Amino acid sequence: MITSAKNEKIKEVAELIKKPRARDKAGLFVVEGVRMVAELPAERAVRIYVSESRLAACGADPEHCEGIAGIPAGVPCEAVSDAVFSAMSDTRTPQGVLALARQYTYAPDDVLGDRGTRPALLMILENIQDPGNLGTILRAAEGAGVTGVVMNRGTVDIYNPKVIRSTMGSVFRVPFFYADDFGGTLTELKRRGIRLFAAHLEGARDYDREDYKGGSAFLIGNEGNGLTAETAAAADATVRIPMAGKVESLNAAMAASILMFEAARQRRM
Amino acid sequence: MITSAKNEKIKEVAELIKKPRARDKAGLFVVEGVRMVAELPAERAVRIYVSESRLAACGADPEHCEGIAGIPAGVPCEAVSDAVFSAMSDTRTPQGVLALARQYTYAPDDVLGDRGTRPALLMILENIQDPGNLGTILRAAEGAGVTGVVMNRGTVDIYNPKVIRSTMGSVFRVPFFYADDFGGTLTELKRRGIRLFAAHLEGARDYDREDYKGGSAFLIGNEGNGLTAETAAAADATVRIPMAGKVESLNAAMAASILMFEAARQRRM
Repeated sequence: MITSAKNEKIKEVAELIKKPRARDKAGLFVVEGVRMVAELPAERAVRIYVSESRLAACGADPEHCEGIAGIPAGVPCEAVSDAVFSAMSDTRTPQGVLALARQYTYAPDDVLGDRGTRPALLMILENIQDPGNLGTILRAAEGAGVTGVVMNRGTVDIYNPKVIRSTMGSVFRVPFFYADDFGGTLTELKRRGIRLFAAHLEGARDYDREDYKGGSAFLIGNEGNGLTAETAAAADATVRIPMAGKVESLNAAMAASILMFEAARQRRM
Repeated sequence: MITSAKNEKIKEVAELIKKPRARDKAGLFVVEGVRMVAELPAERAVRIYVSESRLAACGADPEHCEGIAGIPAGVPCEAVSDAVFSAMSDTRTPQGVLALARQYTYAPDDVLGDRGTRPALLMILENIQDPGNLGTILRAAEGAGVTGVVMNRGTVDIYNPKVIRSTMGSVFRVPFFYADDFGGTLTELKRRGIRLFAAHLEGARDYDREDYKGGSAFLIGNEGNGLTAETAAAADATVRIPMAGKVESLNAAMAASILMFEAARQRRM
């Protein structure tokens, strides 16, 4: 059992939780919590850390924690003292289970769905800053049948522990990538016949007047500033969610969900 | 200028921020932040507190802060030292403006809209616990043209500062009340011809197959447990938001928004 927060493995986890660069360099990320670790595909898991009190609660021997409740069999498992677990955890009330996982490397084609049976439905995110928003968008995206998510480099790191948590596991199932050449990616998507709809407070038409049954992508911009003029201009159409009362705009995740579920609604009809 | 956190007025504000009972008893609540105070209707404002650095930034004299930028004229205003402001503030980075406001007392009829021009569209919330969710629902409700919000006593206090903040001002414009007799209120709404739709993971029909053009109300339950069986049974119909992938449910505020904006969409057609 690891009982020192200065242990190299513990320091590695703490670094991966805090620093996007450390995650990038190692190609790893951290998944915390009983439910999230249970949802992590076993082939992604590199190592699992369990606190001593969690092990005790499961009636497991600290020296043999492989395969206990909720931890995929065959994944190396290491027991740590409660104090050490708390020190490395990103949460206020740690659940005592944490996994080191391998990052995903999707090809651009992976986000496009299946041309025959499931036309592309993409979320394209520009400069989304709030980890909770990004996570919530991923969760809603899976529920709405979105085929993939494309982000520009100015969007928050998807492997940020807060993002991972708020996806409730959808991050393990929805393909995504960061586009280094964001403008070029938009052009390429259009070349492939995908229509780009920019969510805009001054959109030309109400969002429910457009047809999303064919290959479609929604462009969602930064929480405070919306889409950059350049990105909005690259879209085939701009759409707005009409607002009653004195509300100027919805939260970015909320607006994204309303658009995605409108597309899902049309595709069910 | 108030320079002691032990000042009776400062202690009153701190109590009102922290304790639902103190708010109930006084019939007051606290509104914090430049934008929120600017949105507060002047007739609701009892007193405004401004930090010395905020006053300095506005070039105002601490002894005469009435009517400075963003503060409604005619409302008593009191300057406080920065340290005192930080001590009573509910936020990490206080903006230096805070108002004491009178609570709303809507009659049940106020939430029903106008039978002729704007049929009732109600959100009925049971045991919603998260202040951010309640605030977000209010904000989206105003945007979707909801006529009012009804809550059971188990729902978080709408005057909680986190709720107020996350409404972005909608709490000042959307009528609401807490129903002491929740079941009786549902019966009364039905008697008035309002159809109750319970959002339910195992709803009988997809939400977009129902008609919300007439008087309608959506019943939304607790974040973890959904609606109680009793409340779900009181509804005229149960509806579900169909989910792709492995997503079981959406966040309560997200689900509520999708329902409200579907009603708004139908009403625009």
